[in-house]
This record gives sequence, structure tokens and C-alpha cells, in this order.
Amino acid sequence: MFELLDKLGIFLGSTDNYEEADSVIIGLPMDFTVSFRPGTRSGPQQIRNVSVAIEEYSVYQNKDLVDYSYFDGGDVSLQFGQVKGSLDRMYTVCKQIHADNKMPIMLGGEHLVSLPLIQAASEKYPDMVVLHFDAHADLREDYLGEPNSHATVIRKVCDFIGGKNVYQFGIRSGTKDEFEFAKNNTNIYVDKVIEPLKEVITTLGDRPVYVTIDIDVVDPAFAPGTGTPEPGGCTSREILEAIHLIAGKNVIGFDLVEVSPAFDVSERTALLGAKIVREAILAFTKPKTK
Amino acid sequence: MFELLDKLGIFLGSTDNYEEADSVIIGLPMDFTVSFRPGTRSGPQQIRNVSVAIEEYSVYQNKDLVDYSYFDGGDVSLQFGQVKGSLDRMYTVCKQIHADNKMPIMLGGEHLVSLPLIQAASEKYPDMVVLHFDAHADLREDYLGEPNSHATVIRKVCDFIGGKNVYQFGIRSGTKDEFEFAKNNTNIYVDKVIEPLKEVITTLGDRPVYVTIDIDVVDPAFAPGTGTPEPGGCTSREILEAIHLIAGKNVIGFDLVEVSPAFDVSERTALLGAKIVREAILAFTKPKTK
Amino acid sequence: MFELLDKLGIFLGSTDNYEEADSVIIGLPMDFTVSFRPGTRSGPQQIRNVSVAIEEYSVYQNKDLVDYSYFDGGDVSLQFGQVKGSLDRMYTVCKQIHADNKMPIMLGGEHLVSLPLIQAASEKYPDMVVLHFDAHADLREDYLGEPNSHATVIRKVCDFIGGKNVYQFGIRSGTKDEFEFAKNNTNIYVDKVIEPLKEVITTLGDRPVYVTIDIDVVDPAFAPGTGTPEPGGCTSREILEAIHLIAGKNVIGFDLVEVSPAFDVSERTALLGAKIVREAILAFTKPKTK
Amino acid sequence: MFELLDKLGIFLGSTDNYEEADSVIIGLPMDFTVSFRPGTRSGPQQIRNVSVAIEEYSVYQNKDLVDYSYFDGGDVSLQFGQVKGSLDRMYTVCKQIHADNKMPIMLGGEHLVSLPLIQAASEKYPDMVVLHFDAHADLREDYLGEPNSHATVIRKVCDFIGGKNVYQFGIRSGTKDEFEFAKNNTNIYVDKVIEPLKEVITTLGDRPVYVTIDIDVVDPAFAPGTGTPEPGGCTSREILEAIHLIAGKNVIGFDLVEVSPAFDVSERTALLGAKIVREAILAFTKPKTK
Amino acid sequence: MFELLDKLGIFLGSTDNYEEADSVIIGLPMDFTVSFRPGTRSGPQQIRNVSVAIEEYSVYQNKDLVDYSYFDGGDVSLQFGQVKGSLDRMYTVCKQIHADNKMPIMLGGEHLVSLPLIQAASEKYPDMVVLHFDAHADLREDYLGEPNSHATVIRKVCDFIGGKNVYQFGIRSGTKDEFEFAKNNTNIYVDKVIEPLKEVITTLGDRPVYVTIDIDVVDPAFAPGTGTPEPGGCTSREILEAIHLIAGKNVIGFDLVEVSPAFDVSERTALLGAKIVREAILAFTKPKTK
Amino acid sequence: MFELLDKLGIFLGSTDNYEEADSVIIGLPMDFTVSFRPGTRSGPQQIRNVSVAIEEYSVYQNKDLVDYSYFDGGDVSLQFGQVKGSLDRMYTVCKQIHADNKMPIMLGGEHLVSLPLIQAASEKYPDMVVLHFDAHADLREDYLGEPNSHATVIRKVCDFIGGKNVYQFGIRSGTKDEFEFAKNNTNIYVDKVIEPLKEVITTLGDRPVYVTIDIDVVDPAFAPGTGTPEPGGCTSREILEAIHLIAGKNVIGFDLVEVSPAFDVSERTALLGAKIVREAILAFTKPKTK
Repeated sequence: MFELLDKLGIFLGSTDNYEEADSVIIGLPMDFTVSFRPGTRSGPQQIRNVSVAIEEYSVYQNKDLVDYSYFDGGDVSLQFGQVKGSLDRMYTVCKQIHADNKMPIMLGGEHLVSLPLIQAASEKYPDMVVLHFDAHADLREDYLGEPNSHATVIRKVCDFIGGKNVYQFGIRSGTKDEFEFAKNNTNIYVDKVIEPLKEVITTLGDRPVYVTIDIDVVDPAFAPGTGTPEPGGCTSREILEAIHLIAGKNVIGFDLVEVSPAFDVSERTALLGAKIVREAILAFTKPKTK
Repeated sequence: MFELLDKLGIFLGSTDNYEEADSVIIGLPMDFTVSFRPGTRSGPQQIRNVSVAIEEYSVYQNKDLVDYSYFDGGDVSLQFGQVKGSLDRMYTVCKQIHADNKMPIMLGGEHLVSLPLIQAASEKYPDMVVLHFDAHADLREDYLGEPNSHATVIRKVCDFIGGKNVYQFGIRSGTKDEFEFAKNNTNIYVDKVIEPLKEVITTLGDRPVYVTIDIDVVDPAFAPGTGTPEPGGCTSREILEAIHLIAGKNVIGFDLVEVSPAFDVSERTALLGAKIVREAILAFTKPKTK
Repeated sequence: MFELLDKLGIFLGSTDNYEEADSVIIGLPMDFTVSFRPGTRSGPQQIRNVSVAIEEYSVYQNKDLVDYSYFDGGDVSLQFGQVKGSLDRMYTVCKQIHADNKMPIMLGGEHLVSLPLIQAASEKYPDMVVLHFDAHADLREDYLGEPNSHATVIRKVCDFIGGKNVYQFGIRSGTKDEFEFAKNNTNIYVDKVIEPLKEVITTLGDRPVYVTIDIDVVDPAFAPGTGTPEPGGCTSREILEAIHLIAGKNVIGFDLVEVSPAFDVSERTALLGAKIVREAILAFTKPKTK
Repeated sequence: MFELLDKLGIFLGSTDNYEEADSVIIGLPMDFTVSFRPGTRSGPQQIRNVSVAIEEYSVYQNKDLVDYSYFDGGDVSLQFGQVKGSLDRMYTVCKQIHADNKMPIMLGGEHLVSLPLIQAASEKYPDMVVLHFDAHADLREDYLGEPNSHATVIRKVCDFIGGKNVYQFGIRSGTKDEFEFAKNNTNIYVDKVIEPLKEVITTLGDRPVYVTIDIDVVDPAFAPGTGTPEPGGCTSREILEAIHLIAGKNVIGFDLVEVSPAFDVSERTALLGAKIVREAILAFTKPKTK
Repeated sequence: MFELLDKLGIFLGSTDNYEEADSVIIGLPMDFTVSFRPGTRSGPQQIRNVSVAIEEYSVYQNKDLVDYSYFDGGDVSLQFGQVKGSLDRMYTVCKQIHADNKMPIMLGGEHLVSLPLIQAASEKYPDMVVLHFDAHADLREDYLGEPNSHATVIRKVCDFIGGKNVYQFGIRSGTKDEFEFAKNNTNIYVDKVIEPLKEVITTLGDRPVYVTIDIDVVDPAFAPGTGTPEPGGCTSREILEAIHLIAGKNVIGFDLVEVSPAFDVSERTALLGAKIVREAILAFTKPKTK
Repeated sequence: MFELLDKLGIFLGSTDNYEEADSVIIGLPMDFTVSFRPGTRSGPQQIRNVSVAIEEYSVYQNKDLVDYSYFDGGDVSLQFGQVKGSLDRMYTVCKQIHADNKMPIMLGGEHLVSLPLIQAASEKYPDMVVLHFDAHADLREDYLGEPNSHATVIRKVCDFIGGKNVYQFGIRSGTKDEFEFAKNNTNIYVDKVIEPLKEVITTLGDRPVYVTIDIDVVDPAFAPGTGTPEPGGCTSREILEAIHLIAGKNVIGFDLVEVSPAFDVSERTALLGAKIVREAILAFTKPKTK
């Protein structure tokens, strides 16, 4: 009778076989440090739920998920309210995925989850660069006295990989200090995505690339289901194009964060998230060998 | 790393081992024949999703799900718009569960899904009775010319097990013809649940009992997430009490239908559904032998 | 009067023939004077929309709408923001219905709409009594300086029919002054509906009775879609029972007010409204002569 | 045909006189074969409901609905869950409208409803072309084994009018097979609307043109209320411009499908739908003769 | 011009004068440790927002807020994600209120906020009892390894005031261990509120009483806007009656927790919360001396 | 303890000191005359509520709110349903702000609230021009017989400042008569914002400028929370750019109207509103002198 039954809870087309998979999808349902609206903890699950509504084939890239092998490991189990312990668990999971020579495709949760992911990646790829798509600079030293926060995550990243290896696209919100810091330390492109990305891409060569996308880089018209919507962003077409632009590069890690289902009854934010994940798998990972 | 990961998509505490399970949870995501508001196709999945918010222990029955073995097989894969083919698949699945001597715990979907389930059960247990909890009589001969409909399901059931073996509780809506039919053929208790159930229970002895609950027997105050809410129903406490009253009987099949997530942002209908499933497992199935 | 009416969807089973109809359904989509949450202007239309989801037959009364003739005239066309002009139009329509010897079944809108309705009725039936079901006493002299308000409507009614002819059920909110006034002038039953109604009914004899139901007399659990929900009310069963208790009396006018769709995605408030209208037609109007 | 129609609210400014009308609006409330989210059955009614919020005058075209005569016939009464019977009824209604030499303005419902509409049109206008605006190619041979499906509708159309007479705009989702088929058989313009349309228009001459718009061709930012939102679409301005570009052509049939109210509390999808209908009447039908 | 302006953000009828106030309302917008659905951080603000929709006079108690002096201090500013630091801030605020001989009226936030409040109260009133109204026992030793959690708060309370001084009403959910602990240590009344409360009240004499109400003790029909709805609870009338029963006792602290606005578009949960706060002020604090 | 408490109910970073403030924020919660959907009365409060989610610093203008002094006076208290009395109160408040030589930053409410604001401004600045951003022309002589209406407001303005001093941007909806009037009397730019604004700006010199923004000038994709969404508008980036273009001019009054929270669960309309207010303060008012 099992041939009549659907398996629930996995991303469209995932394999059951971890060993054979080239990449691994993991959810990171953490939203403890957010200041405005919690709810991103349900993001990974909703992205999986709605992924059945998109096709496995991408006409943009003329590639098909059936030719790729990726494993959906579920969500990391977190201790609610325990920031450090939760980040440690994510780090452990991500280290293991890298140790197994697989590509992590991580789904937040709040943006702070990128910290252990980028930490783990940088330990394997010390010369890597980070491409950061976001409405917010996330460059504070601390947020209300707390150094580990969704608002400080890229500043922490700068601490260990160096700001000059961080490229920030679409940023349109931050404190005066954050923009000062960015000007002096990172490569920041205010309110713009595609144009600067085209230029940056030409400079990266074969360097390992980590891509972190905060869904709020996209205008809330296209992605209303997020924790801190910031009007004035790019379109959904532009974020898809951004992935296509990065396609030829040596991407070694990817995360998509801040999808928050409760604020979007149309589910289009999660659908955009699912489409981004599909395009990322097709663009950043290797097809199965026949 | 797997010890850090949550498995998604199953009902709270389900086993992975079909062979050892005493009962089997299956979702039936069909809502094609409804006339008012579709959406119950998402009912089974939402009941699973919210089941993490209830405890495995029931203080009502002083029993714990950890002592029971039940397998969550997922949802039956249906052909959208194909009524007969879809009912056939449900029938096949349900027959297999009975053939394996397991108890089916089936989650709708619209009420028409009960038809193949009761058919399958009656073939194994020809002397069984049906306890039907619902706001609507569901006794039409046809609905807008269609004999297979959510509004005709119990009439069809009467055709093969005999109306005198059907007990209907909480009914408060129907056509004049339906109530005429009920008066002459079934055992109907208009707008009442607990009192008549107490009496009926005493007459059942060891006969096999099939329990079908349309969540709309409960007042829409307590269960707003349903296809056709009918004001004037019982409370959530009463439907839980109904299960406790049936606990000692020889229950051989169970379904819960018409949970429709989109109309209940509070998710309390699905939470009530999950609680009903827990109480049904504890009340109607056998604990593991140590 | 038809030039004052907008034709919209019609209530379940309405006739197209005004002349033959025994009663007339009219919507009064006014919500200008409310202080908390506007939105009742959409109440009449939503009650019509959802009426297809209930049956024409009432098992409570063993009566069927097919045996009754009622005309749905649509909504009175109002000038938004013009309180007096709008009330005048309602009065004109209601006078005409009485002049044509038909029973008005009026749907608000805010409670202030009852004022011209009761005015028109009292001019034809000077000895009538008003049965008022509500969470709020609506007995203020003025509200923020405004004498015509949803919060003053029953006080105005007392002015022209006399407080001793007003019976108030289910009241659980008001100022100290309102309850003082009620104690000295009207017949008020705080927080109770069925018990006092049973007693009042026995005293009414053949006197003409006007019934005004503010849906918020029902607890917001059962009727969340209303302008000013007041926790602690009666159940949906009780308000239906109230209509059944009044069934034998000489009812000459009826209104149901304060249904506000936007605050109830489950639509159960409007469904309760539709059921109340069905029960009111069956209980208060005469069947067609064969 | 009127016995097949349910009368509901009417579209802004419709005439009551079928005979005099130059075009006829009909709703097709079918959503049985959809795989993701049902709910488009309420689309036609909501488009009517919100049409009061737009003006009868179009500043884009400098034309006014008061100069046009169109009749709103209500929705085709469907048997829920009966795909073939329902399509037959739509076909019957549409044939009658063509027989009466009127222009059909049809509102879905799911996209499968276009099948009988285009069938009926092609029988009268064998040399017609179809302009198809959609996010999805809808070119599958079958969908989960079912040939009649929202995902197969344009493939069926190709069967009887020939793929070379089908022009597809804005398509950005489909299987590899669908795009293969399109490349070899239809005229497909991936992810683009206005530019290719400008070119196509110049080639059509006086040929009869059928226009079918799936609202999901528009990005879900602008039209979130739809069954299967596909991020990355055109703007609402562009779909309006598309109609203006087609204005001079010999349009003989029009449908707008897949508006699904429940997923859009802002109602902007239905408002866009109402605006599209207004522009279509003004662009594709003839004004009244004075 | 200021006489024309409304002050925003305070509970209905609060004084601006902290010194003269007999009681102090404080919001505790913490929801970091919840496992199911965050969102109670917005509870205090929404209770204030909707408080304008209730009257200052209570017909239940025949008392009026105009005769009472209470100060609304706003919300405690918390460090998001910092559990211990946040609890410390609440403790500091609550200690000050007690030091100033005022009665704290505290609004959560998740139930863990009661821990510092009861700690502070017990240091001033070592012989106090706690009356605990809740659906959940909250008696775990730890929750997923974390001792400070919404699921452990009453267990912690038992540690410092002794379980025999804790009375638990309405409890219907918990682990087997929690109910074992309760049976041996606290006074627990499963699934019942009013009856046991009537008895307990008679035994309290003049002992200081701390009242903590988790809004989920009320059935989600009446209070859907909460983090973890548990079907099968009491009515809104019963929780109001509970306050009236406690009215004559020596209440020295009060909190109301777990109101979560996002899950209740009708706002009736917050309205019930506002009504509970009104009744608590009238029942538990002293009127102004004239 | 007060250093631990948040003040609620004010716009981000407002001063408590009216005297020192250079500009004054006032809410005008009126929505009585709207014909389609009420609800804008909650607009000002929601803009304040969400303003905590944006930064005080604007990277667009490289200016920071900490360098500006503005006072949030709350909402004008209105008599519900009293149009004239309510407009009078707004006029009184606005006159006082001008008399105190402060800049009014007014938040609607429906667009009719701009009438007393522009009246008050024009009395102080008789030679001023009005820059009007809107989807609707608002140039009717009366609306359903009512001269004071959201649909007539700019026509009234033309009466006292002269149509040639009115510049209308983004207009895409109106009656034929309104566009006739505009062509002959005002400066209207149909469906366009940025291009014509760039030209107009160069002609204004030092003339006093009043800016009135109806949020529905923006497409409902970006601003769904409004009373009468009109598809086909500008982006959120464009309305921000419009403010930046006006930055150098002599702006003496500003209002933002028609934000209606209930139709936008994502809150992005209010967030855009808050961002517009921030940009307006930074662009149109003077920084504090050090």
C-alpha cells in the first residue's frame, strides 16, 4: 500500500539517502533574539510544505532537480530561549556536513543562525568570501547590550573572515555607525543588488563563496512574510537573477533566512523561498553522475 | 548528528515501525465534492503539525501514548477532481490495514471519505454499528444529482449496514426528507450528544463499533476551522467525554473528518483534532505488551 | 421605496415578488457612529452570502422556508457620514413596509439603525413592547456629546414608548448611570437571557412585540465578528432558544444588528446571523396559504 | 441557458437586459482539479463584490462603461466534484452566448474552465488564435493520470486549434517536457509579456482572437489571491497595458481565471480582476449605438 | 489644544501620578522560552489598546474604576533572547513596587515571567499562597534541559514557597510526572475551576494571596489568542466569577499571562484580558479615599 | 525603576517637549465618509506602533532623527459620525501648531482630513502650492450628494487656493468629469509620479509647499493596507524618492492619509508610512541647533 502514500515534511524531490546526497537541507528554527516580531521558527517547515507547488524543472537555468541529489535532514532541535546552546548545535550539524564533503543548504530562522554556519564554513575554507543580501546591514557591535543578535551577525562574521571579504547587497537600513563601519571595512552596495553584483562576480575567480540571503532584501511587496519588513527593496525577479549571476562560482555554503509564515497568508514568501532553494541547488551544486 | 534533528510530518509519538504498530494513522486529503468552502485537504497535515503542542499523557484517562504503538503512514495520494478513483485508493489502503489486523485511525478530508472506510470495515465486521457524531444528518439520496457527496455519506452507509445499526448524535441540520428518513430508519438524537450516548453505550455489548466524528458536531466557537460551520453545537469538553464514554467498547475503526485549517488562525480546531486522536488511541487501541 | 435600495445577493430562498411576500428583509449598512471598530456595513451582505450554507428546513421548529414567502429588498442606500439623512431613509423604507402590511426583517449595521425601525413600528403599534437582547445597555443620554449613537439607541426608544415597555436581556456592560436608569425605568436582566425571558413571555399576552437582537449578546466565542465584543455572554444555542420561546407571540418587527465580517474569518458569526434570520422567519411570520 | 445559472451580485454597471447586451459576464466557480490550494470558486463573486470600488470611467482608454451594454448572468451552477458534467454546462452556456452573437466575458474558477470556452469559440471561429497569459505553461498531457486538469488545459487547446495558433506570454513554470512541447509546437515567450506581445499584435490582422488570462501571470506581490502563486511575474500595470495593446484586434472571447479570495485579505487581486474586466469590456466590445 | 488630544498607550482610566496610585500595571513582553508559538510579547500592549472598548463600571461588582487610582508604567524593556537578564529586570521592577507599598498588576508575556514576580512577592509576604489558574500544570523540573521555562515556572515556585501553598485550578494538560508531583506536593484541581475555588477560599483567612492567571485556563473558544491553546477549558464567565470569588481575600499580587494577539483577529482574548484586569483592580485593590 | 520602562504610543524618537519641538505629529483617526471599507481610524496608531522597527538614521539622506526635535501629540479626539464637528477640531489643532510656528506632520484617517489642514495652512501661507500624491483625483463636486467627502477633498482645496496651485501625481482613477475638471483647472499627471515631479520642482522656487500623500498612490502590492486599493500604482521606492526630490523646497505642511491596518497583516503599509514620516521629518524640517 505504501506506493499510495505521500511522505510528508521534506523539500520537493529530496532523496532519502544521506550518503549519496551532494547537498543537505537543514532547517534552523530559531527566533529568540529578534526585537520586532518572532515567528521565523516556522519558516523552514513552511518552505518545505509549499515546495510541492513549484516545479522541479527551472526554465531559467534549463536544469531539473531530478538530476540532482540532495537530502532533507529536517530541523535542528533547539532549546527555546537558549541562544548559545542552540548556536552550538547548528555549528555541530554544519561541521558534520562539511566533514562529509557535502554542501549545506540551510534555512532560518532569524539571521543570527548564519553565524555558526559561516564559522563552520570558514574553518574549512579560510579564504572564502561572503555575499550578503539583506535590507539591514547587521553590523552592530551589540544590540541592546547583547553581542549575539540578528542585528550583529555580519559584524561578527567580519571579525573572523575580515570585512574586506564581505560583500553586502541591497542594504537600505542601519544605524549611522553601521554605515560608517561598512564604508571603512566591508564592501557595501546601498539599495542596489544586480548592478554591483555583476561587477563583484568578475573579481571572485575560484575563491570559495558563501551566500547568505535575508529574504527581507526583497521588498515586502514580494516577501511580506518576514520579521522586519523594510519597504523599498528589490523584486523577486532580481533575487532570482542574483542566484543565476553567481551560478558559475565556487559556492561552498548557502543559507536563506527570515521567512516568517504568520505574516503572509498568501504564502508567496515561502514560495519565493522554495524557488530560491531550487535555483540554489541547480546553480550551486553538482548534478548526479549518471 | 541525527540525534539533533527532528523528524517532521508525523503525529506526536508515532513509531517508524509499521509491523509492530497496533494502529495506523492515515490522512485522506480530499475535498472535491464540498459545496460551500473547500480546504479540508490540509486537515490531516495540520493535525500532525500542531500535535507537538499537546502532551502524550492524558490526565482524563491516566494513560500515556508512550505505552502505545501507532504508525503514521502519511496521506493517501489522490487524483484531484477524481472522486471515484480517490475513494478506491482509500478503500485499498483501509482494506490492507484491516488485513494486517491493525486499527485504522483515519483523518479527513471531507466526510465522503468515511464511505470507503466504513465499507472496508463492514466487510470484516458485518455485525458492526456506526456511531456518527455530526451537525449534519448526511442522509440525502443525492446532492445536486450526485450520489457520492459529503451530504449523502451516511445514507450510503445505511444501504449496506442497515439504518438500525447507525446511531447519530448532535445532528441539528438537514432537509425535512433527511429527518423523515432518519426517524424511520436510523437512530437519531437531534442536537444532543452525551445523554443519548450514555444510553446507547449500554446496549452495544461486544459488537464491533465504528466511530466517525465530523468535527462540526462541535460548536464553531470551539471548532471554527471546518467546511460548513453550524452554530448551536456541543462543547470541546463534550466531544472528549464522548470518546471516554465509548472507551470500553469494541472499537474497530475510527475517523475524524472536516478539519479545515484556513478558517481558524488560532489553530484550535486542529489542536482539538489532535487531542481527539490522542484520546481515541488511548481509548480504542491496546497498549504495548511489555 | 425601491429607489432607495441597492440590490445585492439575496437571502436563501427569498421570493422575487414583493407583493406576495409576507415579510421583507432589508439591510442597513451603517457604521458611522461606532467608537471602537467599524465594519458592520458589510454585515447584511455577508449574512446573505453565507445563507446558502444552511438548510431551509429547521429541525428545531419542524418548519421549512419553502412554505414561507419573504422578499429580500437589498440594502438601503446611505450617504456615508450623514447620520440623520441615513436614519431618515431607513425610516421611510420601514414605514412603507408597515404600510404594505408586511413584517420587516432588518439587518444592521450598527445598533443605531434600530431607532428609526422602532419609531416606525411604534407609530403603527403604539402599545408595543420591545424585547432587547444585547451585551450593552445602550441607555446613555449622549455619547461624547452626540445624542444619536449606537450607545444611546435604547434610551431614545424609552423616550417614545416608555421604559416600562422595554425588556433588556443579557446586558453585562454599561456605565453606572445607565444601570441606574435601567433600574428605575426599564426591565433589565443583567447577564441572563433564557430564565427571565421565560417569565416575561408569560406576561405579554397579545401585545405587539418588537424584537431587537444585538449579536454581541452572544459571547464572542460564538459571535466574534462584531464591533464591540464583550466577553461573558450567552451561547449560540441560547439565542436560538430565545427565538423559539418568543415564537407564539405577536411579533410585528425584528432586527439583528452588529454583525461585522472582518473580525471573523470562520464566518460563524454571519452563519449564526443567517440561522437567526431563518428561525425568526419561521417563528414570527405566517406560512403561505396553499 | 438561464436554468443553469445562479444569480448573484452583479458586476458594476451591468444591464438587466440580456437581449440588448453586447457582452455577457458569467462566473465559472469550479476548483475541483487543483492540486495545491482550492478556493477559486469564490473568485467571480468577489470580483463582482469589489467592482463597486472602481470607477466606470477608464482614464487609460478615455472610455466609460456607461456607454457599453453588458449583462451579468451570474455563475454557472455546477455539480461539485463532477468534472465532466461541469465542463459540459459551461460549454452549453458559452455556445448559447455565441449563438446570440454576444461576446463572452468569463470569470473562473480554475484554468480548466477555459477548455469548454475555447472549444465553443473555436467552433464558431475556426481560424482563431489564442493569446494566453500565465505563469504556468499548462501544456501537460495529463496530470497525475488525469487528462482534464488545470495543468493540461492549453495542451488540449492545442489539440483542436493547433499549437501554432497559441501564443503564450509570461510563462515561467512548467516541466521540461512542457517547454520542449512549447518550443516545437506553440509560440512561447518565457517570463516576458509586453515586448513579445507588441510584436505578435502586428501579425494578427483581422483574425479572431481569444484572450485567456490566468491572474498568476502577474507577480504574487500584485495578485496574491490565486491558487498557485509563482514569484517572478509581471506587474499589474503590465497586464493592464497588455489589454490596451490588444484593444484594436478582433477579440471574440475573453476569460480571466484563478482569482482566489481567501489568500488576499487586502482584496487587491479581485480589484485588479475587476479593473481587468472593465478594461476588457472597454477594449474588446462595442459601445452602445446612440 | 491638548484638551482635544488622546493620550495613547495606557490602560483605560490610569492615573499619571505614580505616587498616588494604589496599584501599578506593568507589561512584561517576554516570549523567548516558548516551544510552540511565540507572540505573547505583544499581549500587554494589545490589552491596553482594546481597553477603551470596555466600560470603567462593572455591573458584576457594582464598582467603578473612577474610584480607584492605578498607574500604568508601560512595559519592562527586555534584552531579546536574554532569559536571565530579562527576569532580573522584572524582579527589580516588582521589588520596587512592593517597596512602595503598591499592588502590582503584571501582564505577560509567557508564563515564565511569573517567576520573578512571585519571588519578589514571597520575600515580602513569606506566608503567602498562590492561586494558579492554567490549562497546563507547569510543574516540570526542566524543559528540554532548560530549568527556566514556561513549563517549569510553578515547579520553581513550589521550591521557594512550598507546594502545599500552591493551589492549581483548571489544569488539564501535563506529563505523567507533573501530575504525580502535583498529587504529592501541590493542591491540584484537574479540569475544574469554580467548585474547588469556592472551597479553597473558605480556608485562606487573611493569608496573603498571589493570583496568577494563564489565559489558557479558559477554553480557546473564548481565548484563542494564546501561545498553546488547550481545548476543553472553562468559559469566560467562569474566569470572571473566579475573580469575584477571591474578591474578599488579602490579594497582594496579580498577574495575567499568555495573551498572544496574532492568533485572534477578533481581539476577544485581549478584551477578556482587559476585563479581567478591570475586575482585578476593582476586586483586589482599595478605592481612593475621598 | 523608570529607566527600565518603555514609553508606549509615540512615534520613534519623539521628544516629550512640545515647546522645543520644530514639528508636531498628530493623528486624525476619522473614517466616517468612506464608501468602500472603513478602518483608517487605526492608521496613526499603527504607524506609531511599527515605527520601532525602522532605524532613526536614513541612509538615503544621510541624516538622523536624533538631530531633529519633533513632538508626538497623539490623536485628535473625534465625535464618531460627526463630520463637521470633527473637521473643526482638526482645524483648531492645526491652526495652533501654525500659530506656534511649528510644522504639522499629520496622519490620517481618510483623505477628507486634509481639508481643514490645508485650509489652516493656506490662511498662513496664501501663496502656497499643494503637491497631491494619490491614485484618485478626489475632484468630485459631491459624493452621493455629500460635498464633504474623501472623494471631494481636492476639489474643495481648489476652491480656496485655486486649481492652478494644485499639482496631482500618480492619479489613475476618477470619473470622466473629474478628469475634465483637472484638465481645465489643476495640473494633473496621470499615472506618473517621478518624471513630472522632477519638472514641477524646478518651477516652485521658494513658494510655500504643502505635501499631501494618499498612501494609495503606491500600488497595493506595496501598500495593501488602505481603504480603496487601486492596482497599477508606483513602487515604495518611488514614493520615497518623491520626498527626496521635494527635500530642498519650502515645505510648510505635510500629511499622510488612508493607511488602514486591518487589510495588511504584514504591516508593511504602516511600515512604509513610518518610513515616509521619517523621511519627511528629515527632508522637510530643520535639525536642532547645537
